[in-house]
Amino acid sequence: MRLTMRLAERSYDIIIKKGSLHHVGQLVNLNRKVLIVTDRGVPAQYVHTFAQQCHAPFVQVVEQGEHSKSVSVWQTLLETMMKLGFGRGDAVAAVGGGMVGDLAGFAAASYMRGIDFINIPTTTLAQIDSSIGGKTAVNLGKTKNIVGAFWQPRLVLIDPETLDTLSPRLYAAGLAEALKAGLLADSELVRIFEEEDCKEYIEQIIYRSLIVKKNIVERDERETGDRAALNLGHTLGHGIESATSLQEEGHLYHGECVALGMIPMLETAELREQVKAICRRLGLPLEVQYDRQLALEAMRHDKKAQSGMIRIVKVPKAGQFRLDKVPFEQVEAVLLGKAEEIPAPKKEKAE
Amino acid sequence: MRLTMRLAERSYDIIIKKGSLHHVGQLVNLNRKVLIVTDRGVPAQYVHTFAQQCHAPFVQVVEQGEHSKSVSVWQTLLETMMKLGFGRGDAVAAVGGGMVGDLAGFAAASYMRGIDFINIPTTTLAQIDSSIGGKTAVNLGKTKNIVGAFWQPRLVLIDPETLDTLSPRLYAAGLAEALKAGLLADSELVRIFEEEDCKEYIEQIIYRSLIVKKNIVERDERETGDRAALNLGHTLGHGIESATSLQEEGHLYHGECVALGMIPMLETAELREQVKAICRRLGLPLEVQYDRQLALEAMRHDKKAQSGMIRIVKVPKAGQFRLDKVPFEQVEAVLLGKAEEIPAPKKEKAE
Repeated sequence: MRLTMRLAERSYDIIIKKGSLHHVGQLVNLNRKVLIVTDRGVPAQYVHTFAQQCHAPFVQVVEQGEHSKSVSVWQTLLETMMKLGFGRGDAVAAVGGGMVGDLAGFAAASYMRGIDFINIPTTTLAQIDSSIGGKTAVNLGKTKNIVGAFWQPRLVLIDPETLDTLSPRLYAAGLAEALKAGLLADSELVRIFEEEDCKEYIEQIIYRSLIVKKNIVERDERETGDRAALNLGHTLGHGIESATSLQEEGHLYHGECVALGMIPMLETAELREQVKAICRRLGLPLEVQYDRQLALEAMRHDKKAQSGMIRIVKVPKAGQFRLDKVPFEQVEAVLLGKAEEIPAPKKEKAE
Repeated sequence: MRLTMRLAERSYDIIIKKGSLHHVGQLVNLNRKVLIVTDRGVPAQYVHTFAQQCHAPFVQVVEQGEHSKSVSVWQTLLETMMKLGFGRGDAVAAVGGGMVGDLAGFAAASYMRGIDFINIPTTTLAQIDSSIGGKTAVNLGKTKNIVGAFWQPRLVLIDPETLDTLSPRLYAAGLAEALKAGLLADSELVRIFEEEDCKEYIEQIIYRSLIVKKNIVERDERETGDRAALNLGHTLGHGIESATSLQEEGHLYHGECVALGMIPMLETAELREQVKAICRRLGLPLEVQYDRQLALEAMRHDKKAQSGMIRIVKVPKAGQFRLDKVPFEQVEAVLLGKAEEIPAPKKEKAE
């Protein structure tokens, strides 16, 4: 399957096909220097399969984990390219999850004011969500994604076969972003999660999720409006992620936190029960212990919280969303277990 | 005078007006946090005049000189903004020369994937050339501008009164880029340099230079074609700049090197004499001692030199240019004093 992201002169193709990792050279020019960025968690066979197709591949393996998404690792990538004599016509490629994509993407965005970026995501989360949309970034201290650029890739190559080596838990965590996409704008995708075998339907799930994201990003590349819908579940989710990341045990994956953060944004009890059943089916956790005050603190520092009000994304029914500004106390009540949902505003806004 | 740079959704105004530094708030929203980046060489009164108009100004003074255009200083700016709680709606402003503009511009380009940038150039070089065009960058080691972004400012405010405190030599060096603009596409500007008092005509000179640059940048924002014309004099110039920067004495300014680098690109002896006379009138040096082998080395490492051929910009007559690819030996011969000019190619290309 092929999707084309249409963004004026920066349009690009997204390929979703089992086994496509073996044929990247047919889709994009690899007859040049390519800096391949990956991390220690990515099976070496994927990097090898891709590197073999490049005329002049240089592999840079970074440590696994969020701490590699730093200014200093990014600087190392730039210095490597400089020493290897990379020019404007050369390219950076990411083979791995979202961390590798964000890091390599920002290196491509800023080397000589921008060179080609090829993104080859190998996790469900990255294939479903983070590999498209053009957001690249690194962290500064504990602040995530504060330094970066909007930089569209030249090609996104999604080979679902690379998911075979993923742990079941990480596999399921990534699916939460697909469930999010379905809740926002594709009720058929929600049905697939309810009734079908996800592994069997994985190409379909990725494709449908990317269609949702693509439609929203094409309308609003730089997140000045509707693109904020993609943050469904992320406001609470980031708070939970922050709080659990400090725990010795019980660390949660991003997708798991997003799933937890989505449920109170669903506006009917019926939809909440339906989504909880899907989470159980996928193996996404519903009962999690964490310091709720810490999560609240993290949310208060969140850039979305301003002057007592907070912007959130609500889902009145599967496949529809609404952007709302609500008092921070309503989110607090949900987090502290005093409420199950954030009430719909009295005066309805346009969807 | 007002110029509008038309670049789709990133269009912006360039204001050229004596005394305009006192009225920035009428032209752009200053009712927010503004990080004002400047260097020790910029008279404090300019920063003060601007800061007074901002609702929440934060001044960051960096050391003078190219070494401040580094990843580490850039990172300091980002950390400062983060600590001060800068959001997407806040802004970065540069008050100073090209170094400050490049550095602050890249900080604005990369903070939260891009926030507003206000450029207030205070040198002839920056007012005539570097403040417009959207190129931002820092250096990595000795390699100039290797890390950066194309990021258009929200406003460029040019107040020629800020030039009053500039040393005569620095003032003249910046005019070399205006002379370049005239040679490329405005013969009337060349006439002004020949016959008029430059200080008296400075607004006119800046305006005409920017018109030339604007027309070229609008056609080719990302330098895939004609924008390369703006490199007239820069191929040889960079070599000379590199060689002289290593000397204990006799360091040259960028504009002085560009002037020296332009002359052999003029295709008639008459035009070369005319331009030399202008250089003498402006006080730009024509006889300079430097290690020519060092300059050659620097040029060979230049990204423009590939496979024995080098891209240069030639001027057949004042106000016209042509992009050429010539054997590196022709440039070498000029640099070593074995030839006065680079011969026109036998087969004429389209202008």
